[in-house]
Amino acid sequence: MTLTRKGQATRERILEAATELIAQHGVAGTSTEDVRKAAGISGSQLYHYFASKQALIRAVITRQAEAPLIPGRPVMGALDSFDALRAWADAAIEHQEHNSGRGECTLTSLAGELSPSDEQTREDLCNAFQRWQSLLHDGLRAMRERGELRPEADLDELSMVLLTALQGGSILSQTARTAEPMRVSMKAALAYLRSFTA
Amino acid sequence: MTLTRKGQATRERILEAATELIAQHGVAGTSTEDVRKAAGISGSQLYHYFASKQALIRAVITRQAEAPLIPGRPVMGALDSFDALRAWADAAIEHQEHNSGRGECTLTSLAGELSPSDEQTREDLCNAFQRWQSLLHDGLRAMRERGELRPEADLDELSMVLLTALQGGSILSQTARTAEPMRVSMKAALAYLRSFTA
Repeated sequence: MTLTRKGQATRERILEAATELIAQHGVAGTSTEDVRKAAGISGSQLYHYFASKQALIRAVITRQAEAPLIPGRPVMGALDSFDALRAWADAAIEHQEHNSGRGECTLTSLAGELSPSDEQTREDLCNAFQRWQSLLHDGLRAMRERGELRPEADLDELSMVLLTALQGGSILSQTARTAEPMRVSMKAALAYLRSFTA
Repeated sequence: MTLTRKGQATRERILEAATELIAQHGVAGTSTEDVRKAAGISGSQLYHYFASKQALIRAVITRQAEAPLIPGRPVMGALDSFDALRAWADAAIEHQEHNSGRGECTLTSLAGELSPSDEQTREDLCNAFQRWQSLLHDGLRAMRERGELRPEADLDELSMVLLTALQGGSILSQTARTAEPMRVSMKAALAYLRSFTA
């Protein structure tokens, strides 16, 4: 579907409204009617962009995947040095300090609400996580090529360790409303990575 | 509320039905009417045990907190040695190998669906996570007292690292339907713990 500039803006407004509502009420607690009202459009307009609630949710996931690794942050540069990864971890911790408990529409919470029978949405979530993992993987490969990581460092494994640390830290920080779980999970993941320093 | 043995059995049947439905449809996708039907009881009976959906969900969380650290496993012994922690990690990995994608009612998924405005349920989830963390903390303290961990090992931090690894591994394994994220998150957490070996 090719959209005019105005059409793109309307579609973006719908996705912003949906993201905000999901942050507050979850996927199941958000109806397409809620989204329609919040975006200030008609039912036929909404249907023009998203033929079903599932189509809308899948677009929210894809949009979150395109966001930087930490929601609400400007796009970060390549994560291809210990300094860059440290800055990334610090940004994740700081984000929890300011936002934990506010309610967020993150890939973590979307995954937590995933229905086991919704195979298409699950694939979108997988793709979103893989996109994030590949950003980390690219950075680690550059570090290995420069000789900062040992040749035997398993980049699939190490990039996944960083991603699980971000997700585990996020879910516990959001629940406990403190950045401490994120702080310690990132600290441990980076220390593990450093154990592969050349 | 003191319950007769029969009353306890009915209450347990309701909680089992609710847990199974939440595993398949999430909290928001599960109505008290669904639970009533699945448990095969009347509406007034359900109300006798749980006056509201929130009361029911809170009881599900408390019940999950009392379960061992890995759902579906028999209660595990003290996690007070590297061998015991390795066996715990292996059980978590094996659990993902057999159950990822089936849909589960875990603290992880319950936390993912938590509404930011539901303060009571959030506190129950915090208590549940703290209960799990304290099991890990107790084991690590025994290891430190026996001299297996260095005196400066921060037990609050290390027990939280193990818990975030379990949660991050769980959410990514459930989404990707492979045990790999759990395998690498647990491997990294245990390696981090080993770096504090005396």
